[in-house]
Amino acid sequence: MYKKKFIYHFRVRYVESDQMGFVHHSNYATYFEFGRIEWLRSVGLSYATLEKQGILLPVLSLSTEFKRPFHFDDEVRLEICVDGDPTVFIDFSYELYNVENVLCTTAKTRLGFVDGKTRKLMRCPEIFMEALNR
Amino acid sequence: MYKKKFIYHFRVRYVESDQMGFVHHSNYATYFEFGRIEWLRSVGLSYATLEKQGILLPVLSLSTEFKRPFHFDDEVRLEICVDGDPTVFIDFSYELYNVENVLCTTAKTRLGFVDGKTRKLMRCPEIFMEALNR
Amino acid sequence: MYKKKFIYHFRVRYVESDQMGFVHHSNYATYFEFGRIEWLRSVGLSYATLEKQGILLPVLSLSTEFKRPFHFDDEVRLEICVDGDPTVFIDFSYELYNVENVLCTTAKTRLGFVDGKTRKLMRCPEIFMEALNR
Amino acid sequence: MYKKKFIYHFRVRYVESDQMGFVHHSNYATYFEFGRIEWLRSVGLSYATLEKQGILLPVLSLSTEFKRPFHFDDEVRLEICVDGDPTVFIDFSYELYNVENVLCTTAKTRLGFVDGKTRKLMRCPEIFMEALNR
Repeated sequence: MYKKKFIYHFRVRYVESDQMGFVHHSNYATYFEFGRIEWLRSVGLSYATLEKQGILLPVLSLSTEFKRPFHFDDEVRLEICVDGDPTVFIDFSYELYNVENVLCTTAKTRLGFVDGKTRKLMRCPEIFMEALNR
Repeated sequence: MYKKKFIYHFRVRYVESDQMGFVHHSNYATYFEFGRIEWLRSVGLSYATLEKQGILLPVLSLSTEFKRPFHFDDEVRLEICVDGDPTVFIDFSYELYNVENVLCTTAKTRLGFVDGKTRKLMRCPEIFMEALNR
Repeated sequence: MYKKKFIYHFRVRYVESDQMGFVHHSNYATYFEFGRIEWLRSVGLSYATLEKQGILLPVLSLSTEFKRPFHFDDEVRLEICVDGDPTVFIDFSYELYNVENVLCTTAKTRLGFVDGKTRKLMRCPEIFMEALNR
Repeated sequence: MYKKKFIYHFRVRYVESDQMGFVHHSNYATYFEFGRIEWLRSVGLSYATLEKQGILLPVLSLSTEFKRPFHFDDEVRLEICVDGDPTVFIDFSYELYNVENVLCTTAKTRLGFVDGKTRKLMRCPEIFMEALNR
Protein backbone atom coordinates (compact mmCIF):
# COMPACT_ATOMS: atom_id res chain seq x y z
CA MET A 1 0.00 0.00 0.00
CA TYR A 2 1.22 3.45 -0.93
CA LYS A 3 2.09 5.38 2.23
CA LYS A 4 4.44 8.21 1.35
CA LYS A 5 3.61 11.70 2.47
CA PHE A 6 4.19 14.58 0.08
CA ILE A 7 4.94 18.04 1.40
CA TYR A 8 4.36 21.23 -0.52
CA HIS A 9 5.04 24.79 0.60
CA PHE A 10 3.29 27.85 -0.70
CA ARG A 11 2.35 31.36 0.32
CA VAL A 12 -1.15 32.83 0.55
CA ARG A 13 -1.84 35.32 -2.24
CA TYR A 14 -3.52 38.68 -1.78
CA VAL A 15 -6.42 37.83 -4.08
CA GLU A 16 -7.24 34.90 -1.79
CA SER A 17 -7.98 37.17 1.19
CA ASP A 18 -11.51 38.37 1.86
CA GLN A 19 -12.87 41.34 3.77
CA MET A 20 -12.84 39.36 7.02
CA GLY A 21 -9.05 39.40 6.54
CA PHE A 22 -9.00 35.59 6.19
CA VAL A 23 -8.28 33.37 3.23
CA HIS A 24 -11.66 32.86 1.60
CA HIS A 25 -12.63 29.22 2.09
CA SER A 26 -13.18 28.63 -1.64
CA ASN A 27 -9.42 28.82 -2.17
CA TYR A 28 -8.61 25.69 -0.19
CA ALA A 29 -9.94 23.43 -2.94
CA THR A 30 -7.35 24.95 -5.26
CA TYR A 31 -4.61 24.56 -2.63
CA PHE A 32 -5.34 20.85 -2.45
CA GLU A 33 -5.41 20.70 -6.23
CA PHE A 34 -2.03 22.22 -6.87
CA GLY A 35 -0.65 20.09 -4.05
CA ARG A 36 -1.96 16.97 -5.82
CA ILE A 37 -0.50 18.11 -9.13
CA GLU A 38 2.94 18.68 -7.57
CA TRP A 39 2.64 15.33 -5.78
CA LEU A 40 1.96 13.68 -9.15
CA ARG A 41 5.02 15.42 -10.58
CA SER A 42 7.07 14.14 -7.63
CA VAL A 43 6.15 10.53 -8.53
CA GLY A 44 6.97 11.17 -12.18
CA LEU A 45 3.54 11.95 -13.60
CA SER A 46 2.35 15.10 -15.30
CA TYR A 47 -1.35 15.72 -14.92
CA ALA A 48 -1.25 17.84 -18.08
CA THR A 49 0.08 14.79 -19.97
CA LEU A 50 -2.42 12.44 -18.32
CA GLU A 51 -5.28 14.60 -19.59
CA LYS A 52 -3.78 14.62 -23.10
CA GLN A 53 -3.68 10.81 -22.87
CA GLY A 54 -7.38 10.81 -22.04
CA ILE A 55 -7.14 10.22 -18.28
CA LEU A 56 -9.20 12.76 -16.35
CA LEU A 57 -9.26 12.99 -12.58
CA PRO A 58 -12.27 15.04 -11.51
CA VAL A 59 -12.96 15.62 -7.83
CA LEU A 60 -16.02 13.59 -6.74
CA SER A 61 -16.15 14.63 -3.11
CA LEU A 62 -14.38 17.06 -0.84
CA SER A 63 -14.71 17.66 2.87
CA THR A 64 -12.76 20.29 4.75
CA GLU A 65 -12.45 21.34 8.40
CA PHE A 66 -11.30 24.93 8.85
CA LYS A 67 -9.79 24.95 12.33
CA ARG A 68 -7.85 28.19 12.11
CA PRO A 69 -7.80 30.77 9.37
CA PHE A 70 -4.85 31.64 7.18
CA HIS A 71 -4.10 35.22 6.19
CA PHE A 72 -2.49 36.98 3.26
CA ASP A 73 1.24 36.26 2.91
CA ASP A 74 1.17 33.34 5.38
CA GLU A 75 3.57 30.54 4.57
CA VAL A 76 1.66 27.28 4.43
CA ARG A 77 2.89 23.69 4.61
CA LEU A 78 0.59 21.27 2.88
CA GLU A 79 0.96 17.55 3.67
CA ILE A 80 -0.78 15.12 1.32
CA CYS A 81 -1.27 11.37 1.72
CA VAL A 82 -2.89 8.82 -0.55
CA ASP A 83 -5.41 6.87 1.57
CA GLY A 84 -5.57 3.20 0.64
CA ASP A 85 -5.03 1.71 -2.80
CA PRO A 86 -6.51 3.39 -5.86
CA THR A 87 -9.41 1.56 -7.51
CA VAL A 88 -11.65 3.53 -9.85
CA PHE A 89 -11.20 6.13 -7.14
CA ILE A 90 -8.18 7.65 -5.46
CA ASP A 91 -8.54 9.12 -1.99
CA PHE A 92 -6.30 11.79 -0.54
CA SER A 93 -6.05 13.42 2.86
CA TYR A 94 -4.56 16.84 3.44
CA GLU A 95 -3.21 18.81 6.37
CA LEU A 96 -2.29 22.49 6.28
CA TYR A 97 0.13 23.85 8.86
CA ASN A 98 1.21 27.40 9.59
CA VAL A 99 4.80 28.47 10.33
CA GLU A 100 4.26 27.79 14.06
CA ASN A 101 3.52 24.21 13.02
CA VAL A 102 -0.12 24.47 14.08
CA LEU A 103 -2.55 22.28 12.16
CA CYS A 104 -5.02 24.78 10.68
CA THR A 105 -6.98 22.77 8.11
CA THR A 106 -7.71 19.13 7.38
CA ALA A 107 -9.42 17.75 4.31
CA LYS A 108 -10.24 14.63 2.35
CA THR A 109 -11.01 14.25 -1.32
CA ARG A 110 -12.14 11.41 -3.54
CA LEU A 111 -11.20 11.68 -7.19
CA GLY A 112 -12.34 9.36 -9.97
CA PHE A 113 -10.34 8.04 -12.90
CA VAL A 114 -12.44 9.05 -15.89
CA ASP A 115 -11.93 8.07 -19.51
CA GLY A 116 -11.64 11.31 -21.49
CA LYS A 117 -13.58 9.86 -24.44
CA THR A 118 -16.43 7.96 -22.79
CA ARG A 119 -16.46 10.26 -19.73
CA LYS A 120 -17.04 7.10 -17.66
CA LEU A 121 -15.16 5.83 -14.61
CA MET A 122 -12.33 3.40 -15.33
CA ARG A 123 -9.82 1.52 -13.18
CA CYS A 124 -6.66 3.29 -12.04
CA PRO A 125 -4.34 3.12 -15.10
CA GLU A 126 -1.12 1.04 -15.04
CA ILE A 127 1.20 4.06 -15.42
CA PHE A 128 -0.42 5.49 -12.34
CA MET A 129 0.01 2.31 -10.25
CA GLU A 130 3.62 2.00 -11.39
CA ALA A 131 4.37 5.56 -10.41
CA LEU A 132 2.88 4.93 -6.95
CA ASN A 133 4.97 1.80 -6.42
CA ARG A 134 8.19 3.18 -7.85
CA MET B 1 -37.42 24.47 14.61
CA TYR B 2 -36.69 26.41 11.45
CA LYS B 3 -37.62 24.27 8.45
CA LYS B 4 -38.15 26.53 5.45
CA LYS B 5 -36.33 25.77 2.25
CA PHE B 6 -34.86 28.65 0.26
CA ILE B 7 -34.48 28.37 -3.50
CA TYR B 8 -32.04 30.39 -5.52
CA HIS B 9 -31.49 30.27 -9.30
CA PHE B 10 -28.29 31.23 -11.04
CA ARG B 11 -26.36 30.52 -14.20
CA VAL B 12 -22.84 29.11 -14.48
CA ARG B 13 -20.32 31.74 -15.58
CA TYR B 14 -17.64 31.19 -18.19
CA VAL B 15 -14.80 31.89 -15.78
CA GLU B 16 -16.06 29.00 -13.64
CA SER B 17 -15.41 26.42 -16.37
CA ASP B 18 -12.12 24.56 -16.54
CA GLN B 19 -10.34 22.77 -19.37
CA MET B 20 -12.23 19.55 -18.64
CA GLY B 21 -15.28 21.57 -19.71
CA PHE B 22 -16.81 21.26 -16.24
CA VAL B 23 -17.42 23.82 -13.54
CA HIS B 24 -14.24 23.78 -11.49
CA HIS B 25 -15.07 22.33 -8.08
CA SER B 26 -13.67 25.32 -6.19
CA ASN B 27 -16.62 27.40 -7.40
CA TYR B 28 -19.25 25.44 -5.49
CA ALA B 29 -18.18 26.96 -2.17
CA THR B 30 -19.02 30.36 -3.61
CA TYR B 31 -22.34 29.09 -4.99
CA PHE B 32 -23.32 27.99 -1.49
CA GLU B 33 -22.12 31.31 -0.13
CA PHE B 34 -24.17 33.56 -2.34
CA GLY B 35 -27.12 31.25 -1.80
CA ARG B 36 -26.76 31.76 1.97
CA ILE B 37 -26.48 35.51 1.54
CA GLU B 38 -29.66 35.65 -0.55
CA TRP B 39 -31.38 33.35 1.96
CA LEU B 40 -30.40 35.80 4.71
CA ARG B 41 -31.82 38.66 2.66
CA SER B 42 -35.05 36.65 2.20
CA VAL B 43 -35.49 36.46 6.01
CA GLY B 44 -34.75 40.17 6.34
CA LEU B 45 -31.06 40.14 7.19
CA SER B 46 -28.19 41.71 5.29
CA TYR B 47 -24.90 39.91 5.79
CA ALA B 48 -23.10 43.14 4.88
CA THR B 49 -24.90 44.86 7.78
CA LEU B 50 -24.27 41.95 10.15
CA GLU B 51 -20.53 42.26 9.52
CA LYS B 52 -20.68 46.01 10.15
CA GLN B 53 -22.45 45.21 13.45
CA GLY B 54 -19.57 42.91 14.37
CA ILE B 55 -21.20 39.57 13.60
CA LEU B 56 -19.01 37.42 11.38
CA LEU B 57 -20.07 34.06 9.98
CA PRO B 58 -16.98 32.20 8.79
CA VAL B 59 -17.32 28.71 7.31
CA LEU B 60 -15.91 26.13 9.75
CA SER B 61 -16.52 23.01 7.71
CA LEU B 62 -17.74 22.14 4.25
CA SER B 63 -18.39 18.79 2.64
CA THR B 64 -19.55 18.37 -0.93
CA GLU B 65 -20.53 15.42 -3.13
CA PHE B 66 -20.16 16.13 -6.85
CA LYS B 67 -22.54 13.63 -8.46
CA ARG B 68 -22.77 15.18 -11.90
CA PRO B 69 -20.87 18.10 -13.34
CA PHE B 70 -22.31 21.44 -14.36
CA HIS B 71 -21.13 23.24 -17.48
CA PHE B 72 -20.83 26.83 -18.62
CA ASP B 73 -24.20 28.57 -19.05
CA ASP B 74 -26.14 25.85 -17.22
CA GLU B 75 -29.09 27.10 -15.23
CA VAL B 76 -28.80 25.87 -11.66
CA ARG B 77 -31.41 25.60 -8.91
CA LEU B 78 -29.90 25.78 -5.45
CA GLU B 79 -32.02 24.61 -2.52
CA ILE B 80 -30.81 25.57 0.96
CA CYS B 81 -32.08 24.34 4.34
CA VAL B 82 -31.05 25.26 7.85
CA ASP B 83 -30.38 21.99 9.71
CA GLY B 84 -31.49 22.12 13.34
CA ASP B 85 -31.47 25.17 15.59
CA PRO B 86 -28.54 27.58 15.53
CA THR B 87 -26.30 27.52 18.64
CA VAL B 88 -22.83 29.01 18.34
CA PHE B 89 -23.00 27.22 14.99
CA ILE B 90 -25.46 27.24 12.15
CA ASP B 91 -25.65 24.25 9.84
CA PHE B 92 -26.91 24.34 6.27
CA SER B 93 -27.51 21.68 3.67
CA TYR B 94 -27.55 22.38 -0.05
CA GLU B 95 -28.81 20.65 -3.16
CA LEU B 96 -28.03 21.75 -6.70
CA TYR B 97 -30.34 20.69 -9.54
CA ASN B 98 -29.98 21.10 -13.28
CA VAL B 99 -32.84 22.13 -15.60
CA GLU B 100 -33.85 18.46 -16.01
CA ASN B 101 -34.40 18.46 -12.26
CA VAL B 102 -31.52 16.04 -11.68
CA LEU B 103 -29.75 16.35 -8.34
CA CYS B 104 -26.14 17.07 -9.30
CA THR B 105 -24.51 18.21 -6.07
CA THR B 106 -25.17 17.93 -2.36
CA ALA B 107 -23.31 19.72 0.41
CA LYS B 108 -23.30 20.59 4.08
CA THR B 109 -21.64 23.49 5.82
CA ARG B 110 -21.14 24.52 9.43
CA LEU B 111 -20.67 28.22 10.06
CA GLY B 112 -19.78 29.83 13.37
CA PHE B 113 -21.10 33.05 14.85
CA VAL B 114 -17.94 35.01 15.57
CA ASP B 115 -17.61 38.30 17.44
CA GLY B 116 -15.89 40.73 15.09
CA LYS B 117 -13.91 42.32 17.93
CA THR B 118 -12.79 39.33 19.99
CA ARG B 119 -12.81 36.98 16.99
CA LYS B 120 -14.28 34.34 19.33
CA LEU B 121 -17.37 32.18 18.92
CA MET B 122 -20.56 33.60 20.39
CA ARG B 123 -24.15 32.40 20.60
CA CYS B 124 -26.47 33.00 17.66
CA PRO B 125 -27.56 36.66 18.05
CA GLU B 126 -31.17 37.59 18.86
CA ILE B 127 -31.77 39.42 15.57
CA PHE B 128 -30.79 36.24 13.81
CA MET B 129 -33.15 34.01 15.85
CA GLU B 130 -35.97 36.49 15.35
CA ALA B 131 -35.44 36.54 11.60
CA LEU B 132 -35.56 32.73 11.54
CA ASN B 133 -38.81 32.60 13.49
CA ARG B 134 -40.52 35.45 11.72
CA MET C 1 -23.22 50.79 -37.30
CA TYR C 2 -24.36 48.97 -34.20
CA LYS C 3 -25.02 51.48 -31.43
CA LYS C 4 -27.34 49.94 -28.86
CA LYS C 5 -26.33 50.00 -25.24
CA PHE C 6 -26.94 46.93 -23.13
CA ILE C 7 -27.53 47.26 -19.40
CA TYR C 8 -26.92 44.49 -16.91
CA HIS C 9 -27.42 44.61 -13.14
CA PHE C 10 -25.63 42.43 -10.64
CA ARG C 11 -24.53 42.39 -7.05
CA VAL C 12 -20.98 42.09 -5.71
CA ARG C 13 -20.32 38.69 -4.13
CA TYR C 14 -18.52 38.14 -0.86
CA VAL C 15 -15.75 36.07 -2.44
CA GLU C 16 -14.94 39.07 -4.65
CA SER C 17 -13.98 41.24 -1.67
CA ASP C 18 -10.39 41.44 -0.47
CA GLN C 19 -8.85 42.41 2.84
CA MET C 20 -8.79 46.09 1.82
CA GLY C 21 -12.59 45.74 1.90
CA PHE C 22 -12.80 46.48 -1.83
CA VAL C 23 -13.72 44.28 -4.78
CA HIS C 24 -10.44 42.75 -5.86
CA HIS C 25 -9.56 44.20 -9.26
CA SER C 26 -9.20 40.76 -10.89
CA ASN C 27 -12.98 40.33 -10.69
CA TYR C 28 -13.80 43.13 -13.09
CA ALA C 29 -12.67 41.07 -16.09
CA THR C 30 -15.31 38.51 -15.16
CA TYR C 31 -17.94 41.25 -14.68
CA PHE C 32 -17.31 42.42 -18.23
CA GLU C 33 -17.42 38.83 -19.42
CA PHE C 34 -20.78 37.91 -18.00
CA GLY C 35 -22.10 41.25 -19.18
CA ARG C 36 -20.98 40.39 -22.74
CA ILE C 37 -22.55 36.94 -22.49
CA GLU C 38 -25.88 38.40 -21.38
CA TRP C 39 -25.63 41.04 -24.10
CA LEU C 40 -25.15 38.24 -26.64
CA ARG C 41 -28.21 36.48 -25.24
CA SER C 42 -30.17 39.74 -25.56
CA VAL C 43 -29.42 39.85 -29.31
CA GLY C 44 -30.37 36.19 -29.68
CA LEU C 45 -26.98 34.50 -29.47
CA SER C 46 -25.77 31.95 -26.97
CA TYR C 47 -22.03 32.04 -26.42
CA ALA C 48 -22.20 28.40 -25.27
CA THR C 49 -23.70 27.49 -28.65
CA LEU C 50 -21.22 29.64 -30.58
CA GLU C 51 -18.34 27.73 -28.97
CA LYS C 52 -19.99 24.40 -29.86
CA GLN C 53 -20.22 25.69 -33.45
CA GLY C 54 -16.49 26.37 -33.39
CA ILE C 55 -16.57 30.13 -32.89
CA LEU C 56 -14.35 31.22 -30.01
CA LEU C 57 -14.12 34.78 -28.74
CA PRO C 58 -10.99 35.13 -26.62
CA VAL C 59 -10.11 38.49 -25.07
CA LEU C 60 -7.09 39.98 -26.85
CA SER C 61 -6.77 43.17 -24.84
CA LEU C 62 -8.35 44.73 -21.81
CA SER C 63 -7.84 48.12 -20.22
CA THR C 64 -9.61 49.26 -17.09
CA GLU C 65 -9.73 52.47 -15.05
CA PHE C 66 -10.74 51.92 -11.43
CA LYS C 67 -12.07 55.33 -10.38
CA ARG C 68 -13.92 54.27 -7.25
CA PRO C 69 -14.02 50.91 -5.51
CA PHE C 70 -17.02 48.66 -5.18
CA HIS C 71 -17.71 46.74 -1.98
CA PHE C 72 -19.37 43.48 -1.04
CA ASP C 73 -23.14 43.49 -1.67
CA ASP C 74 -23.07 46.66 -3.77
CA GLU C 75 -25.58 46.74 -6.57
CA VAL C 76 -23.80 47.47 -9.82
CA ARG C 77 -25.14 48.69 -13.17
CA LEU C 78 -22.99 47.63 -16.08
CA GLU C 79 -23.45 49.42 -19.41
CA ILE C 80 -21.91 47.80 -22.48
CA CYS C 81 -21.50 49.22 -25.98
CA VAL C 82 -20.07 47.70 -29.12
CA ASP C 83 -17.53 50.18 -30.52
CA GLY C 84 -17.51 50.32 -34.31
CA ASP C 85 -18.25 47.45 -36.67
CA PRO C 86 -16.88 43.98 -35.98
CA THR C 87 -14.09 42.83 -38.32
CA VAL C 88 -11.90 39.96 -37.18
CA PHE C 89 -12.15 41.84 -33.90
CA ILE C 90 -15.04 43.13 -31.86
CA ASP C 91 -14.48 46.04 -29.49
CA PHE C 92 -16.58 46.77 -26.42
CA SER C 93 -16.62 49.57 -23.91
CA TYR C 94 -17.98 49.23 -20.39
CA GLU C 95 -19.12 51.54 -17.63
CA LEU C 96 -19.93 50.46 -14.10
CA TYR C 97 -22.18 52.63 -11.95
CA ASN C 98 -23.10 52.36 -8.29
CA VAL C 99 -26.63 52.89 -6.92
CA GLU C 100 -25.94 56.63 -6.55
CA ASN C 101 -25.37 56.63 -10.33
CA VAL C 102 -21.69 57.46 -9.91
CA LEU C 103 -19.41 56.15 -12.65
CA CYS C 104 -16.93 53.94 -10.78
CA THR C 105 -15.15 51.97 -13.51
CA THR C 106 -14.57 52.28 -17.24
CA ALA C 107 -13.05 49.65 -19.49
CA LYS C 108 -12.41 48.62 -23.07
CA THR C 109 -11.83 45.18 -24.50
CA ARG C 110 -10.89 43.80 -27.89
CA LEU C 111 -11.98 40.24 -28.60
CA GLY C 112 -11.04 38.18 -31.63
CA PHE C 113 -13.21 35.81 -33.63
CA VAL C 114 -11.21 32.59 -33.58
CA ASP C 115 -11.91 29.39 -35.51
CA GLY C 116 -12.19 26.60 -32.94
CA LYS C 117 -10.43 24.11 -35.21
CA THR C 118 -7.57 26.12 -36.69
CA ARG C 119 -7.33 28.43 -33.67
CA LYS C 120 -6.76 31.28 -36.13
CA LEU C 121 -8.53 34.63 -36.44
CA MET C 122 -11.47 34.69 -38.83
CA ARG C 123 -13.94 37.37 -39.94
CA CYS C 124 -16.99 38.07 -37.80
CA PRO C 125 -19.45 35.28 -38.70
CA GLU C 126 -22.72 36.00 -40.54
CA ILE C 127 -24.96 34.88 -37.66
CA PHE C 128 -23.16 37.39 -35.50
CA MET C 129 -23.61 40.29 -37.95
CA GLU C 130 -27.27 39.39 -38.41
CA ALA C 131 -27.84 39.37 -34.69
CA LEU C 132 -26.25 42.81 -34.40
CA ASN C 133 -28.42 44.26 -37.15
CA ARG C 134 -31.66 42.62 -36.08
CA MET D 1 15.55 56.67 -11.36
CA TYR D 2 14.77 53.12 -10.36
CA LYS D 3 15.51 50.83 -13.29
CA LYS D 4 16.02 47.29 -12.02
CA LYS D 5 14.00 44.51 -13.56
CA PHE D 6 12.55 41.84 -11.29
CA ILE D 7 11.99 38.34 -12.59
CA TYR D 8 9.52 35.89 -11.10
CA HIS D 9 8.80 32.35 -12.25
CA PHE D 10 5.56 30.49 -11.67
CA ARG D 11 3.47 27.74 -13.14
CA VAL D 12 -0.11 27.98 -14.42
CA ARG D 13 -2.58 26.27 -12.10
CA TYR D 14 -5.41 24.00 -13.23
CA VAL D 15 -8.11 26.23 -11.76
CA GLU D 16 -6.84 29.05 -13.99
CA SER D 17 -7.70 27.16 -17.19
CA ASP D 18 -11.06 27.63 -18.89
CA GLN D 19 -13.01 25.48 -21.30
CA MET D 20 -11.20 27.01 -24.29
CA GLY D 21 -8.14 25.31 -22.77
CA PHE D 22 -6.48 28.69 -22.17
CA VAL D 23 -5.66 30.55 -18.99
CA HIS D 24 -8.76 32.63 -18.33
CA HIS D 25 -7.81 36.28 -18.81
CA SER D 26 -9.03 37.30 -15.35
CA ASN D 27 -6.05 35.47 -13.82
CA TYR D 28 -3.42 37.75 -15.28
CA ALA D 29 -4.29 40.55 -12.85
CA THR D 30 -3.40 38.19 -10.02
CA TYR D 31 -0.18 37.12 -11.77
CA PHE D 32 0.91 40.75 -11.90
CA GLU D 33 -0.11 41.15 -8.28
CA PHE D 34 1.91 38.33 -6.83
CA GLY D 35 4.80 39.40 -9.02
CA ARG D 36 4.62 42.89 -7.47
CA ILE D 37 4.44 41.44 -3.99
CA GLU D 38 7.53 39.29 -4.57
CA TRP D 39 9.28 42.27 -6.16
CA LEU D 40 8.52 44.27 -3.00
CA ARG D 41 9.94 41.44 -0.90
CA SER D 42 13.08 41.47 -3.08
CA VAL D 43 13.67 45.15 -2.22
CA GLY D 44 13.08 44.45 1.47
CA LEU D 45 9.42 45.40 1.83
CA SER D 46 6.52 43.23 2.93
CA TYR D 47 3.20 44.33 1.49
CA ALA D 48 1.47 42.61 4.41
CA THR D 49 3.44 44.86 6.79
CA LEU D 50 2.85 47.97 4.68
CA GLU D 51 -0.92 47.41 4.96
CA LYS D 52 -0.62 46.97 8.73
CA GLN D 53 1.27 50.30 8.81
CA GLY D 54 -1.63 51.92 6.99
CA ILE D 55 -0.16 52.07 3.50
CA LEU D 56 -2.52 50.61 0.92
CA LEU D 57 -1.64 50.17 -2.74
CA PRO D 58 -4.82 49.64 -4.73
CA VAL D 59 -4.67 49.20 -8.49
CA LEU D 60 -6.04 52.31 -10.23
CA SER D 61 -5.63 51.19 -13.82
CA LEU D 62 -4.60 48.08 -15.66
CA SER D 63 -4.14 47.44 -19.36
CA THR D 64 -3.14 44.10 -20.81
CA GLU D 65 -2.36 42.78 -24.29
CA PHE D 66 -2.87 39.03 -24.63
CA LYS D 67 -0.65 38.11 -27.58
CA ARG D 68 -0.52 34.36 -27.05
CA PRO D 69 -2.39 32.22 -24.58
CA PHE D 70 -0.88 30.26 -21.71
CA HIS D 71 -2.14 26.81 -20.81
CA PHE D 72 -2.37 24.72 -17.67
CA ASP D 73 1.03 23.70 -16.28
CA ASP D 74 2.96 26.16 -18.45
CA GLU D 75 6.03 27.62 -16.84
CA VAL D 76 5.85 31.39 -17.00
CA ARG D 77 8.56 34.02 -16.61
CA LEU D 78 7.22 37.34 -15.40
CA GLU D 79 9.43 40.42 -15.80
CA ILE D 80 8.43 43.53 -13.87
CA CYS D 81 9.80 47.06 -14.14
CA VAL D 82 8.96 50.21 -12.25
CA ASP D 83 8.27 52.93 -14.82
CA GLY D 84 9.55 56.35 -13.75
CA ASP D 85 9.73 57.65 -10.21
CA PRO D 86 6.88 57.03 -7.77
CA THR D 87 4.78 60.07 -6.89
CA VAL D 88 1.34 59.51 -5.38
CA PHE D 89 1.29 56.79 -8.02
CA ILE D 90 3.64 53.97 -8.90
CA ASP D 91 3.63 52.58 -12.43
CA PHE D 92 4.73 49.10 -13.39
CA SER D 93 5.12 47.32 -16.69
CA TYR D 94 5.01 43.55 -17.06
CA GLU D 95 6.07 41.01 -19.64
CA LEU D 96 5.17 37.32 -19.53
CA TYR D 97 7.32 34.84 -21.45
CA ASN D 98 6.82 31.15 -22.07
CA VAL D 99 9.60 28.53 -21.88
CA GLU D 100 10.47 29.13 -25.54
CA ASN D 101 11.18 32.72 -24.52
CA VAL D 102 8.24 34.05 -26.56
CA LEU D 103 6.64 37.22 -25.24
CA CYS D 104 3.02 36.21 -24.65
CA THR D 105 1.56 39.05 -22.60
CA THR D 106 2.39 42.68 -21.87
CA ALA D 107 0.71 44.87 -19.29
CA LYS D 108 0.89 48.15 -17.44
CA THR D 109 -0.60 49.10 -14.10
CA ARG D 110 -0.89 52.28 -12.10
CA LEU D 111 -1.22 51.86 -8.34
CA GLY D 112 -1.91 54.60 -5.85
CA PHE D 113 -0.41 55.09 -2.40
CA VAL D 114 -3.47 55.34 -0.18
CA ASP D 115 -3.60 56.22 3.50
CA GLY D 116 -5.35 53.34 5.26
CA LYS D 117 -7.15 55.69 7.67
CA THR D 118 -8.27 58.54 5.43
CA ARG D 119 -8.48 56.33 2.33
CA LYS D 120 -6.99 59.26 0.38
CA LEU D 121 -3.98 59.35 -1.94
CA MET D 122 -0.68 60.26 -0.31
CA ARG D 123 2.89 60.67 -1.54
CA CYS D 124 5.08 57.59 -1.89
CA PRO D 125 6.31 56.90 1.68
CA GLU D 126 9.98 57.30 2.65
CA ILE D 127 10.49 53.61 3.46
CA PHE D 128 9.31 52.84 -0.05
CA MET D 129 11.70 55.35 -1.71
CA GLU D 130 14.57 54.08 0.41
CA ALA D 131 13.87 50.49 -0.58
CA LEU D 132 13.86 51.50 -4.26
CA ASN D 133 17.18 53.30 -3.96
CA ARG D 134 18.92 50.73 -1.80
